[in-house]
Amino acid sequence: MSSTTDRYQRGMQVLEKIQSDATRETSAVLASVAPDMMRWIIESGLGDIYARPGLDLKQRELVTVTALIALGHEHELRVHLHAAMNVGWRREELVEVIMQMALYAGLPAAVTALRVANTVFDERNDDGAPPLNQR
Amino acid sequence: MSSTTDRYQRGMQVLEKIQSDATRETSAVLASVAPDMMRWIIESGLGDIYARPGLDLKQRELVTVTALIALGHEHELRVHLHAAMNVGWRREELVEVIMQMALYAGLPAAVTALRVANTVFDERNDDGAPPLNQR
Amino acid sequence: MSSTTDRYQRGMQVLEKIQSDATRETSAVLASVAPDMMRWIIESGLGDIYARPGLDLKQRELVTVTALIALGHEHELRVHLHAAMNVGWRREELVEVIMQMALYAGLPAAVTALRVANTVFDERNDDGAPPLNQR
Amino acid sequence: MSSTTDRYQRGMQVLEKIQSDATRETSAVLASVAPDMMRWIIESGLGDIYARPGLDLKQRELVTVTALIALGHEHELRVHLHAAMNVGWRREELVEVIMQMALYAGLPAAVTALRVANTVFDERNDDGAPPLNQR
Amino acid sequence: MSSTTDRYQRGMQVLEKIQSDATRETSAVLASVAPDMMRWIIESGLGDIYARPGLDLKQRELVTVTALIALGHEHELRVHLHAAMNVGWRREELVEVIMQMALYAGLPAAVTALRVANTVFDERNDDGAPPLNQR
Amino acid sequence: MSSTTDRYQRGMQVLEKIQSDATRETSAVLASVAPDMMRWIIESGLGDIYARPGLDLKQRELVTVTALIALGHEHELRVHLHAAMNVGWRREELVEVIMQMALYAGLPAAVTALRVANTVFDERNDDGAPPLNQR
Repeated sequence: MSSTTDRYQRGMQVLEKIQSDATRETSAVLASVAPDMMRWIIESGLGDIYARPGLDLKQRELVTVTALIALGHEHELRVHLHAAMNVGWRREELVEVIMQMALYAGLPAAVTALRVANTVFDERNDDGAPPLNQR
Repeated sequence: MSSTTDRYQRGMQVLEKIQSDATRETSAVLASVAPDMMRWIIESGLGDIYARPGLDLKQRELVTVTALIALGHEHELRVHLHAAMNVGWRREELVEVIMQMALYAGLPAAVTALRVANTVFDERNDDGAPPLNQR
Repeated sequence: MSSTTDRYQRGMQVLEKIQSDATRETSAVLASVAPDMMRWIIESGLGDIYARPGLDLKQRELVTVTALIALGHEHELRVHLHAAMNVGWRREELVEVIMQMALYAGLPAAVTALRVANTVFDERNDDGAPPLNQR
Repeated sequence: MSSTTDRYQRGMQVLEKIQSDATRETSAVLASVAPDMMRWIIESGLGDIYARPGLDLKQRELVTVTALIALGHEHELRVHLHAAMNVGWRREELVEVIMQMALYAGLPAAVTALRVANTVFDERNDDGAPPLNQR
Repeated sequence: MSSTTDRYQRGMQVLEKIQSDATRETSAVLASVAPDMMRWIIESGLGDIYARPGLDLKQRELVTVTALIALGHEHELRVHLHAAMNVGWRREELVEVIMQMALYAGLPAAVTALRVANTVFDERNDDGAPPLNQR
Repeated sequence: MSSTTDRYQRGMQVLEKIQSDATRETSAVLASVAPDMMRWIIESGLGDIYARPGLDLKQRELVTVTALIALGHEHELRVHLHAAMNVGWRREELVEVIMQMALYAGLPAAVTALRVANTVFDERNDDGAPPLNQR
């Protein structure tokens, strides 16, 4: 059985791997207005779910980016495009995901996602970090 | 430059790999009421987008299943859970995707997806086919 | 200034033009569980908005059907596909609307709408009534 | 600091108060196909969030029912209309919530919710249990 | 039977209770581009529905805020977070609603709502007005 | 059978008729970050679907604008409000569409659309171009 301390630490380990200026900005808003929700995200979101075996972190970020494109959450999409590139996805692959979403979520969702991707690509000077297990 | 015949054939090759009773039932409805749309899906959807390099078919089905969970399209989710298992995803992995979606699309979307997954798992007597490139 | 009686009568005149077994079934549910909402729909929905000049009833049903495809409300889509055919839209035109929605709302929304259209076309023995102003 | 056992027990106490045949049917599906998700819902959903002070259980069910109407999750709406009536909401009040949603989520979402409410009202022979703190 | 003048006046009485700079800014846009819609909102929205007995104004604003979080309408969420605080909801309670929505609408919807709440809390120098019936 | 060159040219003919600063800005983003998707939109979207007979361009833009209001895609709504006015829709008619959407997609979607329409009307010094077939 897993204690709250363990869950928090597991969550923080996930957060460090996907960290960017975008996650830090979001964390600052949450810490100010809803610190308990910040803690719940780390323990119950990152610690309990992201850290599970069955899918690796790179697969989980692909799934997360896809959901954010489909649902149209622009702020969070920026956060997780950075996260996806931090764990090894490359620009061209993320653009492919967006094209696939043109079919399933419609053109406007895809065009909006490309605007966000354009911003994220400008904010980085790499084409995606090498996958975590190859560093 | 790619002719319409080529695009149709490329699309049909994708369709054969993901085919199931669920795709066949959908195809029958479309062929009856909107045959031009059936053709457009094969050429412009499967032939132009699914068949692109950059993501392989297994990754594309992961992305598609995720979008269908997030957007709540139950019929199409059944179609693509079968497709995902045809190209190599296992039950446990698809359940992990649904748990990840509990975080990003909310509990009700995840619970609905689990109902559909339950049906699909009952319809199959395997735990997912081996990946296409390992047969 | 328009009295409540006028608004109700204007709304009922709209309802008669779009009436089908599908509207009657919905009205019965509402009359049983939420009669005030039934009245509000007739007065504030049909009487105040549908009956306005600026768009005619045929244009308004096109707009309504489109929204229901995009938002995925299957029950109400059946109601308004009947309504659209009652005021002059033909099968082929409604299928075109659904194909246009494949681009803007995504393939799963379009496929779901084709399933509903298939049912509605089976329930009718016409290809759409002639437009109201040509009877 | 709260142990996992405490969180699970707090969650189960919430579940008992909102329990119905509809929750039991959902729990059975989850226990069969995704037992870890069942546990996460009890610990992280019911134990960590529902059980917090700041809003009481009756207010939380109002909020939950509203979200399910707005997002169109019919199965889960049935579950939480029962839950809402178990903790003290009456039929007339829930119909008012649905009318309010006609304004904010649109008529089709409201009509769909009334169909579900109609079913739930038929499944019960009360007009809502007395609020928990008045028994 | 209720005349249009009565409905308009009832609606304006509701508007005065929830009024803020955010409602005034929205009203100015509507009055300029769609004055008939402004009137319809006051008569059919505020006068016919908000003013009904069955739920009080404080409960109705809770329901409205919840729907706006779930559906992701940021502008209108700002309007109704102010409205909710005008009729007696406190900061902590509104943050609880947002945490509850993390479960039902997903983390991204909740994080977006917290950003808007952060702005609204900065725009006010109170922790929510006392409830209307306690002034 | 239609060659890719034909499809591209047919698509470009549609694009010229709906062109505005808003389409040009979107095209520039796409050309920079996802040129293959730009081409797919022209060939498979505009060339294959928009250019079909069965609905004329003016009807197709009505349908597109409606979907964008219902789904809340603000950027693309600006693009297609310009497009709609380019092919013959007038301000008053587009405001009517938005009022109709207040009923079917809810007030917040309609209010957001009116904000976008307000911007578009300010960007133009006409009340909509005459329909294409009357020039």
